[in-house]
Amino acid sequence: MGRKKNVTFNDIAKYTHFSKTTISRYFNNPDSLTLENQEIIAKALVDLDYKENKVARILANGKTEFIGIIIPNLSLHYYSEMLDKILSTYEQFGYKFLVFIGNENEETERRYIEELLAYKIEGLIILSHTIPSKELSGLQLPIVTIEREDKYVCSVNTDNYMGGYQATNLLARLGCDILIHINSPSNEAIPAYGRVKGFSDLCNERQIPHEIILKEIGITYESMQGHLKIILNDLEHKYTKKKKGVFLSNDSQANIFLNLLIRKYGSLPDDYLIIGFDDSPVSREAIIPISTIGQQIDKIAYEAVSLLVEQMDERKKRRPVPLKEPIHKVVTPILIRRETTEKM
Amino acid sequence: MGRKKNVTFNDIAKYTHFSKTTISRYFNNPDSLTLENQEIIAKALVDLDYKENKVARILANGKTEFIGIIIPNLSLHYYSEMLDKILSTYEQFGYKFLVFIGNENEETERRYIEELLAYKIEGLIILSHTIPSKELSGLQLPIVTIEREDKYVCSVNTDNYMGGYQATNLLARLGCDILIHINSPSNEAIPAYGRVKGFSDLCNERQIPHEIILKEIGITYESMQGHLKIILNDLEHKYTKKKKGVFLSNDSQANIFLNLLIRKYGSLPDDYLIIGFDDSPVSREAIIPISTIGQQIDKIAYEAVSLLVEQMDERKKRRPVPLKEPIHKVVTPILIRRETTEKM
Repeated sequence: MGRKKNVTFNDIAKYTHFSKTTISRYFNNPDSLTLENQEIIAKALVDLDYKENKVARILANGKTEFIGIIIPNLSLHYYSEMLDKILSTYEQFGYKFLVFIGNENEETERRYIEELLAYKIEGLIILSHTIPSKELSGLQLPIVTIEREDKYVCSVNTDNYMGGYQATNLLARLGCDILIHINSPSNEAIPAYGRVKGFSDLCNERQIPHEIILKEIGITYESMQGHLKIILNDLEHKYTKKKKGVFLSNDSQANIFLNLLIRKYGSLPDDYLIIGFDDSPVSREAIIPISTIGQQIDKIAYEAVSLLVEQMDERKKRRPVPLKEPIHKVVTPILIRRETTEKM
Repeated sequence: MGRKKNVTFNDIAKYTHFSKTTISRYFNNPDSLTLENQEIIAKALVDLDYKENKVARILANGKTEFIGIIIPNLSLHYYSEMLDKILSTYEQFGYKFLVFIGNENEETERRYIEELLAYKIEGLIILSHTIPSKELSGLQLPIVTIEREDKYVCSVNTDNYMGGYQATNLLARLGCDILIHINSPSNEAIPAYGRVKGFSDLCNERQIPHEIILKEIGITYESMQGHLKIILNDLEHKYTKKKKGVFLSNDSQANIFLNLLIRKYGSLPDDYLIIGFDDSPVSREAIIPISTIGQQIDKIAYEAVSLLVEQMDERKKRRPVPLKEPIHKVVTPILIRRETTEKM
């Protein structure tokens, strides 16, 4: 184990007859050497079987090439898919990722950030909701958040307003008598709030009868199912014989709502149209494929890392110019029509 | 940005009137100081607002506390849940994780391993299938694999044989006339092959009529649905009026099989019992909750990191004793009975 002696700059200098300073310049500023000398050193590295020690280089130039990530969990498909796409940007940008699962605990997440800072990360991507953006901006580190409160830091979010508008517009065009939106209570600082606003703006513009049900229905399957059962019962009584267009805030809920109807009626009744949000696997794998608003997760991940890289690059300049205002990017969602909104 | 001057060992030495050597000993071997002196230094760190630089410490003691992970993707729930649980072991063991998505490409994964080695990782957890364990063992690094070919390296796997046996036993006890197992062709070196063996051993022991269908049915939803439709049609003709117990190799497939039956008959016919494998969310969220074999993902993750930590600790000893043989741990799966195997 590790018996082989490490090749040092000294060894390379001796072998090539260059000075140690020249070898160091090769690693830290290769363009300051002639192409010929670069090639001589490159060949020596192969001959000597030199293994790069990035940890040693970091001390020399201060660039760890580390990005820290704090993500609430990987049980929700949205998060695991986003992490997959973020990690895959290594191929474009070369940054390595140190990942922590936040689990919605503010104190724990502060501890993780301390640990990441001790490892001299160059930037931070935050998907968890706990620490206010004001506090994050105080870290004096390039930061990008995704789909959370982001007033004081850079962020990339889905255009939730447009998503809500698109979903509602589809239900409206298919001639529903009443449009219903089911979501959890939130406030305007959270990007997902745009879905509620998109729904209500379109209904008001077109003067379509509508109801917004804002209710904390939980995150476990059992809790969501229990609450949606009650909501469905209410809707059945309230809007009998009316054609109902139901826009749920995510695909898991849309799937539960659909299953409740099918277990009751054997198939999806003609007077129900259903659309979810996220394009998660459950929307494709449901007994009847569910219409949904797809988030461009690969694009969001790419934009987030790219926005972070810009800030990290700026910091490395001799006279860095800090951002005057945080940059907020939005990514357009995509309407995906499937069988739960087929025109009857 | 970063305007605050870093506090150095020199500063701490001056402040406490200890030597720099004593300060260094505090960080690298605290027990060599009296408790009193430890407390004086600890207090000084707070007074001076000292920020630990782990990168500098690594150079001093060679311990990066990094574990590398290579995982095929995070789209499959099994992988994202496993990564979630592995990352969460930070709370017990303190190791940080550098994560790469392998995407089933052997050359790419070799490149990732090179990169991880350059960052002086202390150990490696591998979930991807591409690089043979013989090659991995040549890296001279503590390695643990999960649920893949593992002849030459340590590993933690589910007891797939017992899982297959449990699933088959349930179908047998419920009085099926014919037992069917659907899986993809694989070989005995892959842990998941145990499921096929568990199925066939039990059927042979009890002399129960059975059929094993080994077919490459793909990993996309559309491909799996297409193939399972054909398989279902065949079974319908071949075993009309017989009570069929169907054991599918994972829950996604079990869900598709169930949906095909319900879209055909409106409900699950009495002559079908279905069981999947994995306890993934789709098994709970299906229109009829699907019976399955649950893998103890949290336990597998914990055992994997713990087995790795043992090896990493051994390496840090003055006279490390390398393992003579790789250690292979198995974790018991759990039978989860739901509505698709209710006694009629």
